[in-house]
Amino acid sequence: SLAHRCHHRSTAMLDVPFLPFCAFLGTLGLLCVAMVGTWCQHWRGGFSLDGGSRTFNWHPVLMVMGLVVLYGAAALVYRIPNTWSGPKLPWKVLHGSLALGAFILTVLGLAAVFRFHNSQGTPNMYSLHSWMGLGTVLLFSCQVGTPPGYPIPPSSRVFLPHLLFPQWAAGFGAFLLPWAPAWLRALYKPIHVFFGSTILMLSVASCVSGINEKLFFSLKNGTMQYKLLPAEAVFANTLGLLILVFGVLVVAALARPSWKRPDSDSPDSRQVRDVLGG
Amino acid sequence: SLAHRCHHRSTAMLDVPFLPFCAFLGTLGLLCVAMVGTWCQHWRGGFSLDGGSRTFNWHPVLMVMGLVVLYGAAALVYRIPNTWSGPKLPWKVLHGSLALGAFILTVLGLAAVFRFHNSQGTPNMYSLHSWMGLGTVLLFSCQVGTPPGYPIPPSSRVFLPHLLFPQWAAGFGAFLLPWAPAWLRALYKPIHVFFGSTILMLSVASCVSGINEKLFFSLKNGTMQYKLLPAEAVFANTLGLLILVFGVLVVAALARPSWKRPDSDSPDSRQVRDVLGG
Repeated sequence: SLAHRCHHRSTAMLDVPFLPFCAFLGTLGLLCVAMVGTWCQHWRGGFSLDGGSRTFNWHPVLMVMGLVVLYGAAALVYRIPNTWSGPKLPWKVLHGSLALGAFILTVLGLAAVFRFHNSQGTPNMYSLHSWMGLGTVLLFSCQVGTPPGYPIPPSSRVFLPHLLFPQWAAGFGAFLLPWAPAWLRALYKPIHVFFGSTILMLSVASCVSGINEKLFFSLKNGTMQYKLLPAEAVFANTLGLLILVFGVLVVAALARPSWKRPDSDSPDSRQVRDVLGG
Repeated sequence: SLAHRCHHRSTAMLDVPFLPFCAFLGTLGLLCVAMVGTWCQHWRGGFSLDGGSRTFNWHPVLMVMGLVVLYGAAALVYRIPNTWSGPKLPWKVLHGSLALGAFILTVLGLAAVFRFHNSQGTPNMYSLHSWMGLGTVLLFSCQVGTPPGYPIPPSSRVFLPHLLFPQWAAGFGAFLLPWAPAWLRALYKPIHVFFGSTILMLSVASCVSGINEKLFFSLKNGTMQYKLLPAEAVFANTLGLLILVFGVLVVAALARPSWKRPDSDSPDSRQVRDVLGG
């Protein structure tokens, strides 16, 4: 009908194919990582493990690599059309590996800022950035397999990933492994999907507040004041905006109905059918 | 079938009715407004129009009222099931009025911070917070009817809403009024919906970076330093987290498939059908 053709034509103009979009996103993600590295190397003195400000510099780099870019890649795995048919286990392993990689980088990024604060005698966990950021990481740790009731370590220095391994195993058991009960996976999947996008939004909000805060800390002398907008400020502000664009595009891609697995509206109905023979 | 019942049971456990959810969101939004007002009144000296820091205090209050809470209410109008049948125009008027109210509060909130900076001789628009925040407001001004090519006013003080009225009329013509061509509305609707959620995410990220920045500015003396976490810091950090929760819940509600208008997957297909008699 004319109405159908009209509707088809008008939405087709907005259609973007998934793979070129991913290539663009990948480029943007690499650009963000390159820029945060350049910022820390060129303007903030580079990297070391001595507990000084060059130890802190690992924090933004690892957070952008882990909790933004690698996290975004992990989140988008099931939007690749190749994953919609055939065996699902290899894609689950890819999704889990990317998420585990993102989580390890995130934990190291947290360790960097705690080590810097502790060796400088600065208190941990007072700014809104730190509250939001740690909340994001705790949600992420639930997401990768820790039950929500997992206690915060008594010392803020204790962020050793191996402490999380038993809970990781529980998470894998519930979702990744084929012998978890179908009703449990069907119940858990929409929760996992919801927090997948939510954590990325929180992560991006944490990044921009952290960049903003770091620039106020670092740029306060003479002609280098933040309010005079020196080159470093323009560079890092631009980095913040690019991280925002990356996050918005990943969240939008995750929400786009035509890029979801065809059966994703009815959570795990295919798995439920398979298990129960329905 | 057993599979169907199993699936139904497991997702029903996650089902939240829309109206109680909205009541909760409304309470949370009012709590955010009350808290930002309390912060500015109790700890930051209250409100005035003299160009000093009490003029600045209008900025966070108007932004949280306008660009977060009222904006969220405007965005959710079409998720009310009553709007899915019967005449749509009254709901369009409600959506547009709430959005216009949100935009007016936002412009006044911008005016407050520009007036404060100008009367103090502080530069405008240097921090990442300001870049992100103004970007958010410019996207919002496109959303309410200004074409994307609208030039930024030459003086940053010129933010008089009446300058936008011709463009507003254009926006209303394209979307609100029944004589706009169906193909234009069908083309524009998914863009409007996408930016609807995106602007709220950016707005919330702007709020938390702004609260973080303001606390670093304000809390620097003696026992009142931010890093010693005085009562004001705990209060305003908590406000920031509540704003994040509000934003995440509104974006999630907008994305939830079962709360969308039944015909919303095919953009404006009903209007296209009506117009073309298809």
